[in-house]
Amino acid sequence: LAGAGACARAGGGRALGPRLHVPQPLAAGCGVGLPEAQRHYLFSVMRLREGGRARLFNADDGEFEAVVDAIGKRECRVSLLSRLRPPPAPEEGGGPTLLFGVLKGARLPTLVEKATELGAGALQPVLCERCAARSLNLDRLSAIATEAAEQSGRLSVPVLSPPLRLEAALAEWDAARPLWACDERGGGTPLARAAREAGSGALRSAGLLVGPEGGFSAAEFEAVAAAPGVAFVSLGSNILRAETAALAALAVVGAEEEAVGGEGKNV
Amino acid sequence: LAGAGACARAGGGRALGPRLHVPQPLAAGCGVGLPEAQRHYLFSVMRLREGGRARLFNADDGEFEAVVDAIGKRECRVSLLSRLRPPPAPEEGGGPTLLFGVLKGARLPTLVEKATELGAGALQPVLCERCAARSLNLDRLSAIATEAAEQSGRLSVPVLSPPLRLEAALAEWDAARPLWACDERGGGTPLARAAREAGSGALRSAGLLVGPEGGFSAAEFEAVAAAPGVAFVSLGSNILRAETAALAALAVVGAEEEAVGGEGKNV
Repeated sequence: LAGAGACARAGGGRALGPRLHVPQPLAAGCGVGLPEAQRHYLFSVMRLREGGRARLFNADDGEFEAVVDAIGKRECRVSLLSRLRPPPAPEEGGGPTLLFGVLKGARLPTLVEKATELGAGALQPVLCERCAARSLNLDRLSAIATEAAEQSGRLSVPVLSPPLRLEAALAEWDAARPLWACDERGGGTPLARAAREAGSGALRSAGLLVGPEGGFSAAEFEAVAAAPGVAFVSLGSNILRAETAALAALAVVGAEEEAVGGEGKNV
Repeated sequence: LAGAGACARAGGGRALGPRLHVPQPLAAGCGVGLPEAQRHYLFSVMRLREGGRARLFNADDGEFEAVVDAIGKRECRVSLLSRLRPPPAPEEGGGPTLLFGVLKGARLPTLVEKATELGAGALQPVLCERCAARSLNLDRLSAIATEAAEQSGRLSVPVLSPPLRLEAALAEWDAARPLWACDERGGGTPLARAAREAGSGALRSAGLLVGPEGGFSAAEFEAVAAAPGVAFVSLGSNILRAETAALAALAVVGAEEEAVGGEGKNV
């Protein structure tokens, strides 16, 4: 399940058991009944039994150690023990918003999974002229984002919104937040440089806009260029696939935030 | 096929036709017979006919415009017209070497495809104690790297070597080149900062080491820490899957190189 050297993090690690996102309120001493999918995961996949340990978390309450009180083919109840991590302070919240042209096939789940790992605060699918796909399965993609958040140590799950047409997404964007458009026709500043100059506060509220597999149409490109808050940025001279561009952009912004701000915040 | 805004690059673009990597020598005025896979791609997928245009490239000779002289179900011959791009100067060559624990399933082709897009100069699979897979299909992965190079505008295809055991890979590494190990147990410098401090020359010759899905064993971690040239780097506080860590590391190093060195080199 876990990635590069995932074994022995300070304050975490496998010894504390599986990590589950639970939207309802969490507090030390409370009992929590888990839904069927999580019961199945703990009982049949992770083979937890009574007395086993897990971790439950959400962005409002933080992360708690939990002990299994009852588990079987029909139900799973756990009790919350001590709080392992507090919720993030308001100023630490968020992460860049990724606006991305809807992709088809396996590239969309890959994008959602890795964007979650790389710290995206929100995921906004965008419908463009050249989108090969016009719809997406929000429930399935939300489950993928939740699972990626559970594995990655995040406290939050990125907000996945229903698709918007490009014009609507641009019109809704708060122009006070930078919106970095990754399209090499824009001839933009290298993203690492733009991020460095923007400062760490802006990095958590920034938007990253990536077109669909076929790129923006000429009319869409003009609309992006004219939208308030937009600056074109460059991700190097290679032509990146849409989902590669999205992940590279998130990685670069996250790395700049870490380099200027010291520790990442695991939100 | 192409990614974010792939349509209208200066000096490139779809109007010039499909882009094919051809290992044999290329020069203006020459005729070239293409192998079956490329014949099939041009004839049946791209539906090129006599007089159609394509681009042929390799890292030794650069990139050439080509015109189709004969194409059908049995053969494809093209003539090379003018050179569109020269080969890279020796000091521009290369790109980081990615050393990665062998992954199983679809994650390995994803890693090879995106590492190629993101500018890896060489790909070195590494066998570790916790590798779930012990072998890989080098021919198939090389074909994926070639296709990704064709789509991304690179002139070179990354060298994909047969797997090495971790100890052998560490022993073979030239200690004069930085080898950045992505394992949060190492408590390293943020990668963006390490890359900035290393300077642009080091970025093209650096190695990036990422463990397998289960992470390095304790003994392997010690061996990595003791190896000459190794420095641990951080990719933020989230736990990344192995292939996500590899791609994020390449994206960050590439972005730093672009930010300090001006234009990327499209090698």
